[in-house]
Amino acid sequence: MSLNSTQALGFDVFGTVVDWRNGIARQVAPFLAVHGPHHDPWQFADTWRSQYQPAMQQCRSGTRPYVRLDLLHREMLVTALHRHGLSAADIPVSELDELALAWRRLDPWPDVLEGLQRLRRRFVLVPMSNGNIALLLHMAKRAGLPWDAILGSEVTQAYKPMPAAYLRTAEVLGIPPHALCLVAAHNDDLAAARACGLATAFVVRPHEHGPAQTIDLAPEGPWNLNARDMIDLADQLGC
Amino acid sequence: MSLNSTQALGFDVFGTVVDWRNGIARQVAPFLAVHGPHHDPWQFADTWRSQYQPAMQQCRSGTRPYVRLDLLHREMLVTALHRHGLSAADIPVSELDELALAWRRLDPWPDVLEGLQRLRRRFVLVPMSNGNIALLLHMAKRAGLPWDAILGSEVTQAYKPMPAAYLRTAEVLGIPPHALCLVAAHNDDLAAARACGLATAFVVRPHEHGPAQTIDLAPEGPWNLNARDMIDLADQLGC
Repeated sequence: MSLNSTQALGFDVFGTVVDWRNGIARQVAPFLAVHGPHHDPWQFADTWRSQYQPAMQQCRSGTRPYVRLDLLHREMLVTALHRHGLSAADIPVSELDELALAWRRLDPWPDVLEGLQRLRRRFVLVPMSNGNIALLLHMAKRAGLPWDAILGSEVTQAYKPMPAAYLRTAEVLGIPPHALCLVAAHNDDLAAARACGLATAFVVRPHEHGPAQTIDLAPEGPWNLNARDMIDLADQLGC
Repeated sequence: MSLNSTQALGFDVFGTVVDWRNGIARQVAPFLAVHGPHHDPWQFADTWRSQYQPAMQQCRSGTRPYVRLDLLHREMLVTALHRHGLSAADIPVSELDELALAWRRLDPWPDVLEGLQRLRRRFVLVPMSNGNIALLLHMAKRAGLPWDAILGSEVTQAYKPMPAAYLRTAEVLGIPPHALCLVAAHNDDLAAARACGLATAFVVRPHEHGPAQTIDLAPEGPWNLNARDMIDLADQLGC
């Protein structure tokens, strides 16, 4: 499968492009050393991330208008602290504000920079993430991600897997849905994109959720491409 | 003036970053050679561009919702042909569609790439243009403009000099207006940005309108910086 009609690749970011679990644990560790020395940074990262879908669900269902992910991360941090028996009220606001932006300071998987640089020669590359523009911009600037534009939920005003998240991305790029390919490590994201007429490429990330990961270890749908990593994806696409 | 509190530079694009007049004339020339051999490509470029403000004014005034500039350029092309005594109906639609996108294929002024590469080390760089995302993306990809994100009218849903065009850009970047500096070759654009609390930098482009240019040859307001070109701007900002 060569994705002959594909003009643009839209990338899921958290998990597919960047390693959020180790990146959050790295930044949470010095914070917990002060405020909760008996807590495991990786477990805290998992707790924080576990609020992700419920937080966005409020916006998807319409009980809350679109809210930037930076702000949801801040709210989710307070909940995560509470679940670990820590109180946000005991911690300086500036410290919480700073830690909430940890999601802007995540490192890409080792194959990403080489893979994206090669893919960029032939395709338009954009994030197709639930992140907001400033979050994705600062992440890209720090990590050197060579996006051609920062798209995502703030441009479409819709969180994946809402159809508008996929369809408006194609519309903004001025291309039909089938000319846009979602690259993601998550089968449910790919299924939603495929239902909207997008092309799909699965990139496996067997350690996104740590060493004991049980989900998304293999493609679970008729995706156009399945790749081991971004370098393999570039190889398969002849870039 | 060192712009101490500035975190991001937002650039006007048409005229400030790219040389639209020569770029349009270059692409119009082979078209006119076939369809209107007695017409001057530079004059045609001026006619085409002269519809720019009136076309956007419909959207600014609310008589028309926000429309992408790619589409306005297509409509303005038909008007420009008419003013030159040529009929769009006599020309294949595919040829008009292709020529309408000429604004995506403009070259930057000679100082731009070096200047932006230097400025990018210290500041977030974004276009703050009336162009739409796909237009600015393809222009950047072709010319190598190192934007950190593609902002502009499609993200703010407002055409300059509407206040929302400036204020929503700062909001999307997550910074106060005074931390955003508009870089532009047009005094009226800078005046509108300043009225919104943005910092301002004038970069003179004495040949934007050709050899006989009479406007915007000097700063006409208390701009924070005045520069000869983007390299001079980088010098003045210590980048």
